[in-house]
Amino acid sequence: MKIGYIVPAPLYWDVQGATPRGKLLKEWAFPNTEVNFVIVTEGPITIESKYEEYLSFSATTKEIVRLEKEGYDAAIVGCAADPGLDAMREITTKMLVVGLGEPSVLTAAMLGHKFSIISLYESEIAAFEEIVYKAGVLDKLASVRALNIAVLDLAVNRKSIVEKIIRVSQKAIEDDGADCLVLGCGVIGFLNVADEISKFLKIPVINPPKNALKMVESLVSIGLMHSKKAFALPPKLSSGKVKNIDQLFVYGHSPKVRRK
Amino acid sequence: MKIGYIVPAPLYWDVQGATPRGKLLKEWAFPNTEVNFVIVTEGPITIESKYEEYLSFSATTKEIVRLEKEGYDAAIVGCAADPGLDAMREITTKMLVVGLGEPSVLTAAMLGHKFSIISLYESEIAAFEEIVYKAGVLDKLASVRALNIAVLDLAVNRKSIVEKIIRVSQKAIEDDGADCLVLGCGVIGFLNVADEISKFLKIPVINPPKNALKMVESLVSIGLMHSKKAFALPPKLSSGKVKNIDQLFVYGHSPKVRRK
Amino acid sequence: MKIGYIVPAPLYWDVQGATPRGKLLKEWAFPNTEVNFVIVTEGPITIESKYEEYLSFSATTKEIVRLEKEGYDAAIVGCAADPGLDAMREITTKMLVVGLGEPSVLTAAMLGHKFSIISLYESEIAAFEEIVYKAGVLDKLASVRALNIAVLDLAVNRKSIVEKIIRVSQKAIEDDGADCLVLGCGVIGFLNVADEISKFLKIPVINPPKNALKMVESLVSIGLMHSKKAFALPPKLSSGKVKNIDQLFVYGHSPKVRRK
Amino acid sequence: MKIGYIVPAPLYWDVQGATPRGKLLKEWAFPNTEVNFVIVTEGPITIESKYEEYLSFSATTKEIVRLEKEGYDAAIVGCAADPGLDAMREITTKMLVVGLGEPSVLTAAMLGHKFSIISLYESEIAAFEEIVYKAGVLDKLASVRALNIAVLDLAVNRKSIVEKIIRVSQKAIEDDGADCLVLGCGVIGFLNVADEISKFLKIPVINPPKNALKMVESLVSIGLMHSKKAFALPPKLSSGKVKNIDQLFVYGHSPKVRRK
Amino acid sequence: MKIGYIVPAPLYWDVQGATPRGKLLKEWAFPNTEVNFVIVTEGPITIESKYEEYLSFSATTKEIVRLEKEGYDAAIVGCAADPGLDAMREITTKMLVVGLGEPSVLTAAMLGHKFSIISLYESEIAAFEEIVYKAGVLDKLASVRALNIAVLDLAVNRKSIVEKIIRVSQKAIEDDGADCLVLGCGVIGFLNVADEISKFLKIPVINPPKNALKMVESLVSIGLMHSKKAFALPPKLSSGKVKNIDQLFVYGHSPKVRRK
Amino acid sequence: MKIGYIVPAPLYWDVQGATPRGKLLKEWAFPNTEVNFVIVTEGPITIESKYEEYLSFSATTKEIVRLEKEGYDAAIVGCAADPGLDAMREITTKMLVVGLGEPSVLTAAMLGHKFSIISLYESEIAAFEEIVYKAGVLDKLASVRALNIAVLDLAVNRKSIVEKIIRVSQKAIEDDGADCLVLGCGVIGFLNVADEISKFLKIPVINPPKNALKMVESLVSIGLMHSKKAFALPPKLSSGKVKNIDQLFVYGHSPKVRRK
Repeated sequence: MKIGYIVPAPLYWDVQGATPRGKLLKEWAFPNTEVNFVIVTEGPITIESKYEEYLSFSATTKEIVRLEKEGYDAAIVGCAADPGLDAMREITTKMLVVGLGEPSVLTAAMLGHKFSIISLYESEIAAFEEIVYKAGVLDKLASVRALNIAVLDLAVNRKSIVEKIIRVSQKAIEDDGADCLVLGCGVIGFLNVADEISKFLKIPVINPPKNALKMVESLVSIGLMHSKKAFALPPKLSSGKVKNIDQLFVYGHSPKVRRK
Repeated sequence: MKIGYIVPAPLYWDVQGATPRGKLLKEWAFPNTEVNFVIVTEGPITIESKYEEYLSFSATTKEIVRLEKEGYDAAIVGCAADPGLDAMREITTKMLVVGLGEPSVLTAAMLGHKFSIISLYESEIAAFEEIVYKAGVLDKLASVRALNIAVLDLAVNRKSIVEKIIRVSQKAIEDDGADCLVLGCGVIGFLNVADEISKFLKIPVINPPKNALKMVESLVSIGLMHSKKAFALPPKLSSGKVKNIDQLFVYGHSPKVRRK
Repeated sequence: MKIGYIVPAPLYWDVQGATPRGKLLKEWAFPNTEVNFVIVTEGPITIESKYEEYLSFSATTKEIVRLEKEGYDAAIVGCAADPGLDAMREITTKMLVVGLGEPSVLTAAMLGHKFSIISLYESEIAAFEEIVYKAGVLDKLASVRALNIAVLDLAVNRKSIVEKIIRVSQKAIEDDGADCLVLGCGVIGFLNVADEISKFLKIPVINPPKNALKMVESLVSIGLMHSKKAFALPPKLSSGKVKNIDQLFVYGHSPKVRRK
Repeated sequence: MKIGYIVPAPLYWDVQGATPRGKLLKEWAFPNTEVNFVIVTEGPITIESKYEEYLSFSATTKEIVRLEKEGYDAAIVGCAADPGLDAMREITTKMLVVGLGEPSVLTAAMLGHKFSIISLYESEIAAFEEIVYKAGVLDKLASVRALNIAVLDLAVNRKSIVEKIIRVSQKAIEDDGADCLVLGCGVIGFLNVADEISKFLKIPVINPPKNALKMVESLVSIGLMHSKKAFALPPKLSSGKVKNIDQLFVYGHSPKVRRK
Repeated sequence: MKIGYIVPAPLYWDVQGATPRGKLLKEWAFPNTEVNFVIVTEGPITIESKYEEYLSFSATTKEIVRLEKEGYDAAIVGCAADPGLDAMREITTKMLVVGLGEPSVLTAAMLGHKFSIISLYESEIAAFEEIVYKAGVLDKLASVRALNIAVLDLAVNRKSIVEKIIRVSQKAIEDDGADCLVLGCGVIGFLNVADEISKFLKIPVINPPKNALKMVESLVSIGLMHSKKAFALPPKLSSGKVKNIDQLFVYGHSPKVRRK
Repeated sequence: MKIGYIVPAPLYWDVQGATPRGKLLKEWAFPNTEVNFVIVTEGPITIESKYEEYLSFSATTKEIVRLEKEGYDAAIVGCAADPGLDAMREITTKMLVVGLGEPSVLTAAMLGHKFSIISLYESEIAAFEEIVYKAGVLDKLASVRALNIAVLDLAVNRKSIVEKIIRVSQKAIEDDGADCLVLGCGVIGFLNVADEISKFLKIPVINPPKNALKMVESLVSIGLMHSKKAFALPPKLSSGKVKNIDQLFVYGHSPKVRRK
């Protein structure tokens, strides 16, 4: 099977990180899986707010459309905030699309009674609660707790980040009753620190990109795709009013001015 | 006070509708309110899917930024799906931003025990449930019921649309227990049919644009704005890492390639 | 439009406060609104328990009936506990009735993700949770936190009350995640301290009487009233078994003994 | 033990019904229980709306106060709507007070997975949902379904009422999944038809007054009373600001004018 | 009426405790109740995990079947975890079966707004939340807090156990808002310390075996049994495919090998 | 990796079905997975009630213990009701254990907004709701709808069963809003009809054993196991009071009588 992992933000600040990440994905994959690491060429520096989620939409969509055309079986939107996921699912008809957030919290739900998400910022808490709501597992959410670190600072010091995650996680375990953890960031995922933290804390710790890859391999291998009743093609497309998704966008106040 | 009502889709298919809509808004406003009707110059034909919500983001954002710079007190994103609302609230610091969906369902919650939303499409049901979740009033949602009409067909026949809304609403009332209704579309709002339907069905019917305008006038007049703790400025902006929202978007994999 | 603001407790302990309160309401109102401040002539000293809510019922009802007869467009029951609100809505057929509690928590829901209510007493917490349940926004309630001050002590020292509210609110913000606050008392509302507290805490603070007035002006101006399907006329009245609401009450065990 | 069963509406329309009801209660009671049937001397004809619930408050309170003074162990407010229950619990300190509604739905919760309440009127549905919310068992509520019969018509034809209840209950069982039923009216309770209906439908049917009596006997016999932390004495009483509950009510705008 | 109280674990470690417990039950019962204390002859030492709940199933079932055959009106499964309760209810057709957990939390729900359960172990928290879910009163659960004592250590020092319960309960009251408590263990129940703790903490404290006994007496006295629609006979029995519950169990892979 | 699929009921009625089922599992597995089909040698004929779930416990536990000792990476309890799952997870320390129910509903949650479970019997509805509660996704459950077929009749006529599932599923889709389906039975899973039904209904249909196998392969391949904080070892074992799980069970009322 063929899977595309799309990073929805151009990694200009860490282009050299692309290669080791692509390698990690290949290591994690099952033997017969071909997984390709794709970085968009424009978009937000990193995604740390709802605003930046929207900024990532246009370039990510292009990759989704391309991957489906090229016969990919599935695409992973490589951000824990699942930016634009519902829209991507609307415009695909054969290729499964998942984010990092939803599979992570559902796996957490499978392994314990209450999980906590470790986010980067306080300001992301509501966004993560919304992801958990969309995944349908609010009843199992113990808490979202923030590290107060910027994505761009994640690469700096692996050791101090692991220590910080452990410190915040211990509060989630003791004060909030978490018995399972979700790392709330794709970049942290590629630091590959989940197992180390899990061993120390003695509870499962979900690494979002690794977990999403495996979920996708499972779903594809048994022919499951997101429900097209739940994520229907935009009505203008399904009814034939427009011929392709590009025509859903118009320039100016007259249909003639379409330039794209 | 000064309020901007932004239609997040270029009304090329109904440009002549802009003037009467702007007039209606002025009629609905309190004496000291200046309300201006703004149409974006590019974006989705109409908004009938999550995908089209994202398509509306870029042009709407520009208007939001402009209105705040020009000293507007509030902006209304004129679509019942509240496209991009959370992001718009993140990037504004002095100007209140609301959509049509959230104020409508909260007003419905104030007037009765259970409300139903009358949407255009079946495929919008989940999106409306998400709006109701975000507004926090899922406990009062009786149902979302669809008319199965396209936005573009709304203008055609006022009478038959009123009849259809009444027919679908009666099911919501009798089968789902609704004692209040929300019309789930800004375009229906400007048909100005809520009162007629309300008189017939003998329960309150919320007209989203009219209701949003009044809520905004109320909030502005008592100095209330959306919470900046809930909708924080993107961290790169608040920390000074970038100087303005344009710099949140980069082209290419190197910071040098920024062209905007 | 004509709005009556009914204080459901005789302000004998602060009769001199009636005039400035009436003035404040007039200041807050839109130009074309006539708002009249009404104090009942008997009832509980102040309302700090469910028992005192019931004590306020009889005199408040009389004012409600009078205001509707005199052609008022709306009445506000001026207590954050919404005493008797559902019953008042049952017996009115043309005049909108709201309390202070419900509009406050719904406005809070419109502005952020989680709100806290600052109540006077610990013993009011369950009553406020019930109001939030009735309003339908329990999902957004961060907490109810008590000041442990008596209503009668509110007038004494404005400054120390502001300080106390700030201290308690900070706990709601930091420990409970509130990003919006509701002052849980009409009397505090007229101290007019919400803006000051909001400026200090940097999150919206809802002043119940001010907010209720604006909500009512909005609703009346667009012809919305509480749903008479939700708050039906008592069956004996709607079926004609009795001719007026006075006849719903009987003295003694025989209908003949009615003395009223 | 000594239990008072207070009918919160003067039964002028069925005074002759008092004796058989009192007898039924005595039959239902355990050997050592003394249960006395008390009818208030003024109040609403019957209780079919929230407004009439409030009308019953004053006279019922008087009986509650009297019974506690006379050393009763418990009082039952004999109406399925639990009128004024929370207030009655606030002002009692030694005597347990329960209504009919809360014990009924909690017993139903103990016996099955989903229960339905059979109410008299459509207009009571929201009131019953509120009782179920207050009891804490909304998760087990299958539905509230209405008979559309007036209380005053209940006495007329026992057989046709049983048939009607069965017809409506069958819908609750088949369409809503109810596996247990609560008769939503004290007057129906004294018709003593629950067992007959239960035998026919083959699921438990709760008779509110009978069930409340037994719950009360259980609670009293093991020394349990409603929580005084949950239902605290009004603060003015507990702090000694007033000496008795009568002083909580004032006449006129000056404390001197108290006439009671 | 005749009630069996089944201890689902052989009390080999406290055989001498059987007699005083049986006596306590008889003291607690109403005059006309015959209550018999039954101890299973094999099973888990004590029940402190889900695994041990299952271990208790077989021997407890035998007693349930025997009691129903002997004409008992009701059986109490004497463990706060309600082990196997749903299955016991499936196989009984005339005899009411209850556990200790469900009646306790429902009684707590009747007496206040929020209750806490005091469990023995941290590891039981999820199991108790499940019981509260099954009882339908999750909305009223303030918390489950653990004593971190083993059942076998309960007998050692009555005074120190009371002190520990009080200490943990105070946290439940102050930090979690509990206004009512449930002792989460049948063995603690027979220590008969609930009243003492209640007097000290000034909120109701539910003693599970005592409370279950009274609930059962109430239910039996008014002819109520668990719903056979909710807890249906296993289909093979109701359809006649097998003749008795023993035949539901087969040995080996051929029906001929049945040896029982 | 090595996975055991345990059928918790002796398939005496379909021993010849064991071989093709084992083959199907091997077909479904990834290349490097060794999956072994295990049938218990005693237990319930089939599992159609809570009572039969408990009957399956003892034999299934033995297999779980054996598989963990033999170094298996994971075990699947092959029944949609997840019988004894929580207990199996308590007693394992290195081997992941899952059932069929939980992974199915979590996968359904990942693919759409609302799912329905197609169960065999009406009487299983509450049990399935409990599984969905335990999985944490009650918010996404559209309905549980029953086929009213016995497990033993499933093998008879593949075509008529497919037709029946489709008929019942259409109701779930149209009346309950399901956009994803879960087949509520392991035996149906091995009929391998999910894809056929999915193609016809145009929404995803989860085949429980196939899906569970893939989920397990995913989890094992990234080193995730059920949380031992959530499913702790029984306290007597973790504290060393007993040496192995066999000692948790005692015979007679004296510890000496242990015969096992």
